[in-house]
Amino acid sequence: MAGLQSALKLKQAGKRVLVLEARDRVGGRAMPGEICGQTIDLGGQWVGPQQTLLHAQAREQGVRTYPQHTRGASVLSFNGKVSRYTSDIPRLSLLSLLELGLLERRWQKEMASLPTTGEPWAAAKAEEWDAHTLESWILGHVRTAEAREFARVVTRAVLCTEPRQVSYLYFLEYLRQGRGLKALTGAEGGAQQDKFVGGAWQISKRMADRLEDSVKLNAPVLAVEQDDQTVTVVTETARYSARRLIMAVPPILASKIVFNQPLPSKRNALHERMPMGSVIKIHVAYKHAFWRQRGFNGSVVSNDRHFNVVFDQTPDDERLGILVGFIDGDQAIAMSAMTEESRYQQVIADLVHYFGQEAANPIGYVEQDWTREQWSRGCYVAHMPPGVMTSFGDIIRQPCGRIHWAGTETATEWMGYFDGALQSGIRAASEVVAAAL
Amino acid sequence: MAGLQSALKLKQAGKRVLVLEARDRVGGRAMPGEICGQTIDLGGQWVGPQQTLLHAQAREQGVRTYPQHTRGASVLSFNGKVSRYTSDIPRLSLLSLLELGLLERRWQKEMASLPTTGEPWAAAKAEEWDAHTLESWILGHVRTAEAREFARVVTRAVLCTEPRQVSYLYFLEYLRQGRGLKALTGAEGGAQQDKFVGGAWQISKRMADRLEDSVKLNAPVLAVEQDDQTVTVVTETARYSARRLIMAVPPILASKIVFNQPLPSKRNALHERMPMGSVIKIHVAYKHAFWRQRGFNGSVVSNDRHFNVVFDQTPDDERLGILVGFIDGDQAIAMSAMTEESRYQQVIADLVHYFGQEAANPIGYVEQDWTREQWSRGCYVAHMPPGVMTSFGDIIRQPCGRIHWAGTETATEWMGYFDGALQSGIRAASEVVAAAL
Repeated sequence: MAGLQSALKLKQAGKRVLVLEARDRVGGRAMPGEICGQTIDLGGQWVGPQQTLLHAQAREQGVRTYPQHTRGASVLSFNGKVSRYTSDIPRLSLLSLLELGLLERRWQKEMASLPTTGEPWAAAKAEEWDAHTLESWILGHVRTAEAREFARVVTRAVLCTEPRQVSYLYFLEYLRQGRGLKALTGAEGGAQQDKFVGGAWQISKRMADRLEDSVKLNAPVLAVEQDDQTVTVVTETARYSARRLIMAVPPILASKIVFNQPLPSKRNALHERMPMGSVIKIHVAYKHAFWRQRGFNGSVVSNDRHFNVVFDQTPDDERLGILVGFIDGDQAIAMSAMTEESRYQQVIADLVHYFGQEAANPIGYVEQDWTREQWSRGCYVAHMPPGVMTSFGDIIRQPCGRIHWAGTETATEWMGYFDGALQSGIRAASEVVAAAL
Repeated sequence: MAGLQSALKLKQAGKRVLVLEARDRVGGRAMPGEICGQTIDLGGQWVGPQQTLLHAQAREQGVRTYPQHTRGASVLSFNGKVSRYTSDIPRLSLLSLLELGLLERRWQKEMASLPTTGEPWAAAKAEEWDAHTLESWILGHVRTAEAREFARVVTRAVLCTEPRQVSYLYFLEYLRQGRGLKALTGAEGGAQQDKFVGGAWQISKRMADRLEDSVKLNAPVLAVEQDDQTVTVVTETARYSARRLIMAVPPILASKIVFNQPLPSKRNALHERMPMGSVIKIHVAYKHAFWRQRGFNGSVVSNDRHFNVVFDQTPDDERLGILVGFIDGDQAIAMSAMTEESRYQQVIADLVHYFGQEAANPIGYVEQDWTREQWSRGCYVAHMPPGVMTSFGDIIRQPCGRIHWAGTETATEWMGYFDGALQSGIRAASEVVAAAL
């Protein structure tokens, strides 16, 4: 979406553009799918009210939104116990809830101390925060076992990685860009408030349609060559020369491309130190949305099962019921090694655990293992281990000669989301326009 | 060296072997060079008394050793002050020295609690240690500013990376494999005790010579294809099929190869989470080893200059004087972006700072920037950020179908050293022999 956004902006500015896409479809981490005749998103799907660029682009492309279903009780499966809760407050001990409240306030304060320009390395406490993992920070600052574990679950759900693998500074920046934990994890008022009628992928598809034959599919870039005048992009079957190149791929994919004029060591270091999160997205269809009748809204958060995070994905006409959810972090890596049948058994067992025996008889099951996607290498987003932001972060948006960098990882608002991808595409396009030649 | 060792072992076992080498020379992180007519090592060069595999292989190949020069005082340039010291004990405040002594004893005890099998993820405190960076651990356990800073300098010199980028568990495992900090950093009795007459690279060269035309140079591997019967390796110009494949490259290089039968997500995750250290190795030649006459042994450790670690590299006949040293960690990345002239000026200024005005007039200067080496992506060794060892580490030596893994990063003793490379090559070869078909 970042690349398509760049191309559209440049075309509007009167430039000739060409989009090279590795896959046989556009959209990257947006991906269409189907379950029981119903269109679904195998990739990103939600939009929050603060994500104004995505809303604007959807409107532009004529894709409407509808609200995430939230009426009813959520399920918390935590430390071996299943409970139901309404509102935002899960059923934990009073002490844990008290500590979680303090924790959120502290994160809110710390993230507010970061520059609003997407340069967390310039924060007063950047060095100290970047020396810590989120886990080592939790161990040092959160006392109750329940609050610790809940903080882990939530962050795992947001970043699809274990808290011990992520820099605390990076985590705070992610919070800042996503307007805090509540906005990041919430439905109403948050990043999961609305969905797109017909699926989020349509937005990318329609953006690509406007670019007509300027989009070439099945064209993985193998090498990039630069000289004083031009930049040349090499695919298996062709070479394309241009004045400027915008690379809109996750950092780890950029690291697999050969550059004849070597990138600065700092840029390479960054590319090789930003691994992707790990997640398997799964849809399960039922004849009816039976959970609704029993007062559930379909949402689950869990730290003791495999299918960790679940939402209701039932279509508006309720002709069938659908649940959508995620296996994230280390669980995704472990379950990626299973057969589909074993994974299926596990997911259904988890749904029975959450919603009772009615969950045992689905009519459809569709999974998308992002850990095995060659052209993303994971989802939702790249993360930074400790020390990467402060050592290499400041090169992330710096052009290298005629190469400019886009992609949601380079955003300064809503990094990790479509909205961040769009922002990065607009920024990269303006760099190119400003550079002129 | 790992690949060559595997090939020799397999040849001895009666197998047919082929070694594909990306570069125009064998040796990988061993690399020959020359300064003022004197052969030098642009890559690894030392051998310690505990590195029995390397000693044995050198003997086998007829390469002799000679001791690192250590007679005289070492230089410590620390927090803006230059001092000279003899024996192992630098000139720090008594309190700092006391704390460093305690620190070393603690590390000694903790590393001794790790399994001797190279499986640190199985240690009792693995999860906790792997949640910390070395830096966050230092901040929590070392109090005096001097001791903290000295711990940073030493670890930066060993791993060529900033303490905030490395898992504390990985660091302890590195200590264990290298027999503790003293052995890792020391000359006499340690990993820098001896050097090879004519250079360390000769060992690899002579190993390759014994393999005759079974070694193909300039043959970077682009893709690997597996089926039930064979594994096929694809280069730009040819395809080679075999029963078994041993990959002896750093993890990040393995991540750039395309596998038709996708590797397990866990293996990919590991490859994409083990970045290489950053180092520039520099030799400076003088008419005479003037520092010796002034009572210096040529060794420097510094935390306040750029050319952080220096050793005497003068040939035995003393027909000229040579200093060899390193710019490591973030400094290497920063100085890699300079012109060679600016780097030269900085290095000479640093040597003048350490040894006085006589250092200002070198007769030769040779540098090797490992951060820009396409086929190593850094030196001396890959490291693991927090959370990688406990989440993905246990797959590091597990074959994937017909693919076996060698390289110093997979060693269980002396990982990061030639000795570890040899151990890994022997292990991978025996896996192949045991697998038979």
